Parts: sequence; C-alpha cells; structure tokens
Amino acid sequence: MKERFAVLGAGNGGQVIAAYLKRRGKQVTLYDRFAQVLQPIRDRGGIQLEGLPEAGFAQLDGVYDQVAPAVKGAQVIFVVLPAFAHAYVAGELAGCLEDGQTVVVCPGATGGALEFRAIWNQAGCSAQVRLCETNSLFYAARAKDAVAVVSGVKDELSLAALPAGDTQAIIDDLADVYPQLIPAANVLETSLNNMNTIVHPLPVLLNAGRIESGEQFRHYFDGITPAIGDLAEEMDKERVAVGKAYGLDILSLRDAYVHYYHVQAEKMSDLCHMTPAHATIMAPAVLDSRLIVEDVPMGLVPISQLGKAAGVPTPIMDAVITLAGALVKRNFWQEGRTLEALGIAGLSREELLKKL
Amino acid sequence: MKERFAVLGAGNGGQVIAAYLKRRGKQVTLYDRFAQVLQPIRDRGGIQLEGLPEAGFAQLDGVYDQVAPAVKGAQVIFVVLPAFAHAYVAGELAGCLEDGQTVVVCPGATGGALEFRAIWNQAGCSAQVRLCETNSLFYAARAKDAVAVVSGVKDELSLAALPAGDTQAIIDDLADVYPQLIPAANVLETSLNNMNTIVHPLPVLLNAGRIESGEQFRHYFDGITPAIGDLAEEMDKERVAVGKAYGLDILSLRDAYVHYYHVQAEKMSDLCHMTPAHATIMAPAVLDSRLIVEDVPMGLVPISQLGKAAGVPTPIMDAVITLAGALVKRNFWQEGRTLEALGIAGLSREELLKKL
Repeated sequence: MKERFAVLGAGNGGQVIAAYLKRRGKQVTLYDRFAQVLQPIRDRGGIQLEGLPEAGFAQLDGVYDQVAPAVKGAQVIFVVLPAFAHAYVAGELAGCLEDGQTVVVCPGATGGALEFRAIWNQAGCSAQVRLCETNSLFYAARAKDAVAVVSGVKDELSLAALPAGDTQAIIDDLADVYPQLIPAANVLETSLNNMNTIVHPLPVLLNAGRIESGEQFRHYFDGITPAIGDLAEEMDKERVAVGKAYGLDILSLRDAYVHYYHVQAEKMSDLCHMTPAHATIMAPAVLDSRLIVEDVPMGLVPISQLGKAAGVPTPIMDAVITLAGALVKRNFWQEGRTLEALGIAGLSREELLKKL
Repeated sequence: MKERFAVLGAGNGGQVIAAYLKRRGKQVTLYDRFAQVLQPIRDRGGIQLEGLPEAGFAQLDGVYDQVAPAVKGAQVIFVVLPAFAHAYVAGELAGCLEDGQTVVVCPGATGGALEFRAIWNQAGCSAQVRLCETNSLFYAARAKDAVAVVSGVKDELSLAALPAGDTQAIIDDLADVYPQLIPAANVLETSLNNMNTIVHPLPVLLNAGRIESGEQFRHYFDGITPAIGDLAEEMDKERVAVGKAYGLDILSLRDAYVHYYHVQAEKMSDLCHMTPAHATIMAPAVLDSRLIVEDVPMGLVPISQLGKAAGVPTPIMDAVITLAGALVKRNFWQEGRTLEALGIAGLSREELLKKL
C-alpha cells in the first residue's frame, strides 16, 4: 500500500485520478506544464469530484507547474498525459527521480514505458525506480473549472512493468485503490492493446474533407461507415499479427467490443455504433487533433516498426501513417516512436523479449 | 487524310467522336460490348449531335456489339473506353487487325498504348498497325438516348505513337478532323500527363465517409478542401519527378490549371474551385466509381511502378493505391498496370526509352 502520490497531467484523466486518490485518503500532488490549466484548481484549492462513490471535494497537497516539487517524496507517480508529452515529462523526471519510486504511465499509448526508459538511460539517470504502463485510462471523464465528472470506470485494465518482473509488485502496491489492474505479459502487450490506433486515425483520414469543411458529425456513428469499418478491421489484423510475432495473443478490435461492451454484430461498423458512450462522441473539428498527432506517431508508427523488425508487413498502417502525416504536413515516420526512440533498434526478436 | 473510321466505345466520348466524324463526311462504324448501350442508337438509326458547329443527325455506317465487324476495313480505330476495358478490347482486336490500320487509344490513361502492344505481342498478332494514345479526351460531353451534347472542346491535345517515330504521320493523317493534336515526346509523356490520377482518387479517399453516407457534394468544390488540395499538390510532385527521371518535362497540376483554364491562385484548392466546369461536378455516389477503379490501377499504379524502376520514390501515391484498394476490397498492386502488364518489366531506363 502506498500513501504518497503525484499525478503528472491535469487533463480530464489526471484530475479524476488526483481527486479520487485524495478522497481515498492519500497524499496527492498535481503537476501540469501549463499554469493556466492549474489556475481553476488553485483558485478553488482543489477539485470537486462527481460520478464516483468517492464524490466530494478533494483538497490537494500541492499544485505545481514544475515536475521536481510535484514528485519530491512521492511513492507513486502517475503520468496521465497525451503521449506526445511523454518525452518532455520523461526528460524532466530524469533529473529528480528518487530511489524506490514507481512511475505509472497511464496509458502508455504504444511504447510509453520503453520511451521513458530510453530517455532516462540517455540522460544517465541512475535512480532505482519501478516503471510500468497501462493499456488505457481508468476513467471516461470530463473536467472543467476544477469539477471532474466521471461517466465510466473500466472494470479491468492491464498493466505491465519494464522489466515485467516488477509487474505483480506494482499491482499489489496499487490494489487498495485500483483493484481492477491485471497483469499483462510485458509492455509489448499493453502497447499493442492500444485500440485508439485502429479507431482514431483511419476514420479521421477518410473523413478529412468533412472535417475540414466544418461539418459536425459523430466520429464513430457517422464517421465509421461500413467500408471504413471493414478497412479498420483489416488494419486491426496487422496489429494482431505483430503481437503474434512476439508471442502475444492480442485482443482483436472485434473481440474487444464483445469483451468490454458486450455487443455482437457482423459488421465492424455496427459494433462501433452499438456502444452508446462511443456512438455519441463527435468527430474532431480540426485535422491535427490528438486522433492524428497522438495516435499516429505514438501508436501506428511503433506498431509498424515492431512489425518490420519481426518481418510482419503492415501495409494499411503504413499507408495511414504516410497519408495522415502528409495531410497535416508532418513526417510521423521521423518524429514518431521509432525503434531508435524506444531504445530497441537493432535488437533481434529474442534480444528484445529478454529486455522486457 | 483518312476516310473510314471505327469508334470502339459508345459512352459519352465515343458517341460524340462517331457523330462528329460522320458529320464531317467520314464513313463511321460504332462498337460497344453491351448491346443495351447501343439500342437507343440502333432505334434511332444514328446519333443526334449538339453543341458543335457540325451539329445535326449522324446516320452511322454500322453499329456493332462485336469488335471484328466494326473494325473491318477501317483505316483509323478510335478506342474511347474506360481504361479498365482496354485489356479486353486489345485482346479482341488482336484477332482482327489489318495491315495499315491506325489505333488511337483516346485517352490512354497511363500506359494504354503500352498495354495494347503488350497484349498484341502476347497474342502473336503480326498485323502492321500504327498505335498511339492521347493524354485526354477531345470533348466534355454527355450522351443520352442517342443525343450527344458537347459542352467543351479541348483546343490542344497531345498524342504519342508507340514507337514515337509514327507520331507525326498519325497527327498528319488526322489533321483534317482534329487539328488540335500536338506531338508528345513519347507515350510516357502522354501517360504521365494524366491529371485524373491526381484529382480523382485522393479526394475520393479522403471523403470516403461522406460518399458512403450518401452525402451529395461537389467533388472539386467541396471535396478538395485546402489540406486535401495541398496534399494533391504534394502527390503531384511525385508524378512530375517520375517524368523528370525519364527526361520528360511534365506539366504540373498547378501549371496545367494556369495553362488550360487561365486561373491563378496560391492554394491548389482555390485553383480547383476556380474552373466553373469542374467546380460543379458532383462527387461519385459510390466508393468504387471510375475515380477509384480506373484512376488507381490504370493511373497511379503504373506511375508508381515507373518511379520504382527509375529510383524515384512515390510514397503518397503508394499510400493512396494501398488504402483505396483496401477500401474497395481489391488489390490494385496486382490487378493494375504493372510493368509486367505493360510489357516493360526488367528494362533499364535506357532500354525502355529506346523501345518507345
């Protein structure tokens, strides 16, 4: 059981985790890079939590726009940030980690823990810390003006440490606050179980004209048409095949819908439409939303690269990476999570698996 | 000057060419594979031509649903068909060509003449015929119930023979009816000057959700948004670069708009919107329209393949080929005009240029 937590990131997810942990009686500090994001929380002196049994006001033990004071003395550090902010925060952490701390990248997107480790190694960080990632967020939530409203809680979330030998100890440490954590084989499993890579970039790309025209439409319900759903399922086979090449039995998108949302349909598009919480989500208003600039470079790129390293072709993913990048005038092949960025370039499949 | 013409294909373009040539006093036969397409023309005994100085009724000298009787005795054979019908018609022609005939593939899409020659060679056809292709159609026109209405005529159209040594003789032979023909260096020039490859598949792909949702919108005006226009221009650079690798100065899409439509703008999307005839064209109602199933396999695939053969990367084209194919559940990389299908696989750049 741990008592002192730091939460890095004051977005929807970070605010809920911070408030929830505080309401569970923990000591909690909160960090965000942008002081204006923290201002409403500072003004209010904490966060009002809604939608959980632990609802109520959470007065935090510190609100910081610097990493170092936020994590000083913390036993567990939750990183709850868009994946494109991971590299920055990992760099900041490198200088102030303390022996015995545990860092939970929540979620890691694809390759989060590997990227943290690579950045710490490169910075010569020698602190003895545990590092892990989850495959998704605990909550569906929206936070505004220091009021965080939870609309859904995952009743199962997988976690893997790097190295995997630490996984069970971390799960045990967090069991009092997050009993829904289950162990994944290794960080490749949590990383490849990133469903956003399948349901985010492709539909945005194939609805680009609509988005840029200012049309308002529902991302899943209107954006994932039958042919786009079928294509997403084809792309998903590439993700599952990459997992298989590393000895992992990755849940397909179809099976994930059946497993998590208890829906059944022949067409992938129907499955996407049948989950009420998803169906009402609106499409982004701009092309370079997180559905592209997070899920392509920190999702599809590392999956494609892991595929190449294992001899598994990923032609549909590769096409999406190239086109989505060209559409928003960025080269995700260069700036994304390459094997170099993850510190695993040049390793054989066996060497990589041993490292995990 | 030639007097006996056959027109293969009774679509919009074919009906206008047949009627026009007849109105110019030539002997003209018309072929289409589908008898029901010919029925209105047979019922009427010919085609009513509108929108040209030669307007009036054109009583044809034969209307056939077989190639052989249509081309028997013809001096010039115009092939005015979607590119995906070229292989079939080339095969039919192989058995009934006569020495001295000229075949004009109008337009050739990308690689039309090469494909005809490859199919004839494979079929062992030994007739001494001239073969050429144009880079576009003569007319913008619509034909219905044996009434063909012309809304625009190109005042310049390039033509190349295979081999190029025949180009000028063919242009001279056709000068009385089509004085706007100008010589291209070779069939790579006419083939690479296929603008449809740039303005058709990409906007369809990036508006796929809209199309499949049944939304009615204008292909150029609504479908080519600023970012899609910029991306089309990026893809166009690949086409121009492939031409350059073969010593050709290919007109860019931007320069083509300036040259043909006398418009000027900074954004590619604005150029696409500024040509009234284009701006009002509606997007296709289905994903597997000619804008995909013709322009990808008979346009982008051969350009990409020619690029690979010359060491010119075409990443955006390649992504469009893969994604558009997967979207309509076809593998255009296999069924498209590969270098094998064009009879030029394994040739060095120099060997290829010599063959042209």
